[in-house]
Amino acid sequence: MEAVTGMISKNRAKFVKSLQLKKFRHLEGAFVVEGGKSVLEVLKSDFSVVEVFVTEAFYQNHEALLTTSKAVVQIATEQELIQCGSLQTNNAGLAIVKLPGQEPIDRRPDEFVIALDDVRDPGNLGTIIRIADWYGVSKLYCSEETTDVFAPKVVQACMGSLTRVKVSYLSLEDFLSHQDCPVYGALLNGKSIYDESFATPGIILMGNESKGIAGELMKFVTHPVTIPGHGGAESLNVAVATAVICDNIRRPK
Amino acid sequence: MEAVTGMISKNRAKFVKSLQLKKFRHLEGAFVVEGGKSVLEVLKSDFSVVEVFVTEAFYQNHEALLTTSKAVVQIATEQELIQCGSLQTNNAGLAIVKLPGQEPIDRRPDEFVIALDDVRDPGNLGTIIRIADWYGVSKLYCSEETTDVFAPKVVQACMGSLTRVKVSYLSLEDFLSHQDCPVYGALLNGKSIYDESFATPGIILMGNESKGIAGELMKFVTHPVTIPGHGGAESLNVAVATAVICDNIRRPK
Repeated sequence: MEAVTGMISKNRAKFVKSLQLKKFRHLEGAFVVEGGKSVLEVLKSDFSVVEVFVTEAFYQNHEALLTTSKAVVQIATEQELIQCGSLQTNNAGLAIVKLPGQEPIDRRPDEFVIALDDVRDPGNLGTIIRIADWYGVSKLYCSEETTDVFAPKVVQACMGSLTRVKVSYLSLEDFLSHQDCPVYGALLNGKSIYDESFATPGIILMGNESKGIAGELMKFVTHPVTIPGHGGAESLNVAVATAVICDNIRRPK
Repeated sequence: MEAVTGMISKNRAKFVKSLQLKKFRHLEGAFVVEGGKSVLEVLKSDFSVVEVFVTEAFYQNHEALLTTSKAVVQIATEQELIQCGSLQTNNAGLAIVKLPGQEPIDRRPDEFVIALDDVRDPGNLGTIIRIADWYGVSKLYCSEETTDVFAPKVVQACMGSLTRVKVSYLSLEDFLSHQDCPVYGALLNGKSIYDESFATPGIILMGNESKGIAGELMKFVTHPVTIPGHGGAESLNVAVATAVICDNIRRPK
């Protein structure tokens, strides 16, 4: 759409700011994407962008994309972007995007997917989405306690990968009890990932940062796997461990 | 040492708080370790702990270790620990630790070490130290622009691994020009890590979060390597990439 100029109204800024909280994201059915690169990616994606606030310079550089988009485009100052967003600097833009619907997404029999049990750190969740995208894992099933994927820090950490990896929230107990495939659970005392063939696609189950996989989910783990350690560290960060497991799955056999 | 009770003086709290800044850490020759687990690890390590502030409950649980330590032990409230530290909650303790000397640390011909060119994010540096520790890599060489390892967020992110991985800051150009071993540089267009044998120990060189390896260091890269991607993400986080490369080095051939 053509750009509107003038200041962002106080009410509008308050509305954008409110979307930093999960409660308001769900109430309003919208979330915020910040920073030039992420705004461009979301505009090119299947997400429905409602409104974008961009600096004059950013608008000049991306006028074609912005004017063909259905979103309302408003010119804003860097100061305004920082005030209504969560970033400390933003010389590009901010987009208000419709929350996607929560239809159930089925796992195809031939694919690997990732299930997260109670991952709490937004940075970890964002990094895991980027890892999934890198390794061509397109679905992520999260327990209801897992941190919200549309929180600003998660959106920030996963860059544009959120436009390619589908994330759904559900009862993992319920989900896993309906799956008829191997469940590879990341544990500290499983089979070495170097000895596991990962020949059959299935589910990679990763647990909470400090507690690991919940007791009630352990019965679904058909293949406990472990990343062999060589030093003194007690554990690897959950995102790092997810990447190493994906790498072992994807490496040519 | 026997525990001292009473409030932490205003001056002492100000001093501890000042150590959040690199300038004061170097001026005072000290850094801060926070949280129960990290405090216990540093007390058991080779680091020289000058002073610890602990809650009454933490003191009761770890009295033997605390009283045999040479550090001055002072009982503090949770509120005081939070006020003079960087954590949002801390029901255990905080230690003031002497900065270790910066003697040059040589690489043994039979070992893999990691070199970091301008890694800026404290969380990434901390995670890389934990990864190095997990994979038995005991030395990390950082360019002078790399974020300071004794910053609170780094110390926090690497848990106790800092007590086992030696970190030094130097001119990487100078360091690499004196090394007579393979330098495996993580690039986006190198040889697949799955085809690289990593048969000869050497240096794993990782670049800056957005700019990668600096141009002037490229001439030292004898083995450019790449983690094959399968999806849409443009890159992997630098800590994640470090872990995947270490895993490929350590997996049995």
